[in-house]
Amino acid sequence: MVSIYERLDALNIALPKLTLPVAAFVPFLRSGNLIFLAGHIAKIDSKPWVGQLGSNLSTEQGKNAARAVAIDLMGTLHAAVGDLNHIQRILKLMVLVNSTPAFTEQHLVANGASELFAQVFGDIGMHARSAFGAAQLPFGSCVEIDLIAEVDA
Amino acid sequence: MVSIYERLDALNIALPKLTLPVAAFVPFLRSGNLIFLAGHIAKIDSKPWVGQLGSNLSTEQGKNAARAVAIDLMGTLHAAVGDLNHIQRILKLMVLVNSTPAFTEQHLVANGASELFAQVFGDIGMHARSAFGAAQLPFGSCVEIDLIAEVDA
Amino acid sequence: MVSIYERLDALNIALPKLTLPVAAFVPFLRSGNLIFLAGHIAKIDSKPWVGQLGSNLSTEQGKNAARAVAIDLMGTLHAAVGDLNHIQRILKLMVLVNSTPAFTEQHLVANGASELFAQVFGDIGMHARSAFGAAQLPFGSCVEIDLIAEVDA
Repeated sequence: MVSIYERLDALNIALPKLTLPVAAFVPFLRSGNLIFLAGHIAKIDSKPWVGQLGSNLSTEQGKNAARAVAIDLMGTLHAAVGDLNHIQRILKLMVLVNSTPAFTEQHLVANGASELFAQVFGDIGMHARSAFGAAQLPFGSCVEIDLIAEVDA
Repeated sequence: MVSIYERLDALNIALPKLTLPVAAFVPFLRSGNLIFLAGHIAKIDSKPWVGQLGSNLSTEQGKNAARAVAIDLMGTLHAAVGDLNHIQRILKLMVLVNSTPAFTEQHLVANGASELFAQVFGDIGMHARSAFGAAQLPFGSCVEIDLIAEVDA
Repeated sequence: MVSIYERLDALNIALPKLTLPVAAFVPFLRSGNLIFLAGHIAKIDSKPWVGQLGSNLSTEQGKNAARAVAIDLMGTLHAAVGDLNHIQRILKLMVLVNSTPAFTEQHLVANGASELFAQVFGDIGMHARSAFGAAQLPFGSCVEIDLIAEVDA
């Protein structure tokens, strides 16, 4: 069986080290079999990926940003469980897209994250999802995603 | 005891068949006793119910759209559990209302969904809820709702 | 061991009585060990704390509003579990900040709530969190927060 890490290698994805939030909260928490991940904002070169869809970023750029967030989320999941092969299911993504009132392709932006979870985790990466337009995001970032996953006991 | 389906019949509500998302995610997922439903956007005549509250839709129209989403969510719940009478509780609704910066009646729009859940499910339809204004929604839809429910073991 | 209530006293915080929502939903629900709290809007003098960040409220004012919401959430948690010392963990906050498209300090506003949870609950108050800009909130309130907590069995 191909492990999650072999799939990541095949995609040339290196998981980032866990970065701790600069505030009074934590990047992840476990309760029973559920893991709750804090909202992760899109970053580029370790800085907030600033921009707004419908204004200065294209849907394709937003999709790339969402994919980058998914990689960071996987890095946090790895730090949370020690071994991504213990993940039973990616349950739920909430995808916030920094949007002007005219931009209506939040679902396409969110696919950048959803498709990577499916590629890396296979069937157990297929999740329920909500995607919508935020008026603005912390640090002016273009995308923010949080996640609930199920781990084995 | 009156079943959920008899209440739906009395309200002349026919549940839609499950429609699969056009992306890399799934409409529902179960983890233990919890079911997570993906965000469902408002539809009219099977197409996105386009519009924005505070601009080209009234609060009453938004409330009707939220009620329509609730019907679609019940259709997905039915597909998820096979029999809606197995639902123990509607736990949480997140109601996203496509809003101009001037529209402040998201709670009234959300009532269109909340009241229908209470009508159809009775006490177990009474849920916790968050309602707020989104800058924009996928396909320009006016309302999007996701849901967590508890099912029996 | 200092109890939660002694910490609240030391901070001169009196928990409000539970106020019931004016709609077809409930302020909290328990499912297994999880408690889901409905979105609580910021209030001042028992009325909606109206305003928008980036327009007529400063980040510091928004942070104070978020702190006020946290107090209300603790009041609801107290009503839900009877004794806050039964809370095992504050798991997840979703912090909605009523924002103009130019305001990018949602994280600083959210800290008003996060820091109070850490002060009052100590380590078990450290939670995962998502903070983002809403286009508008019910009643024009400046901040809305919902919460998931874990209680002992």
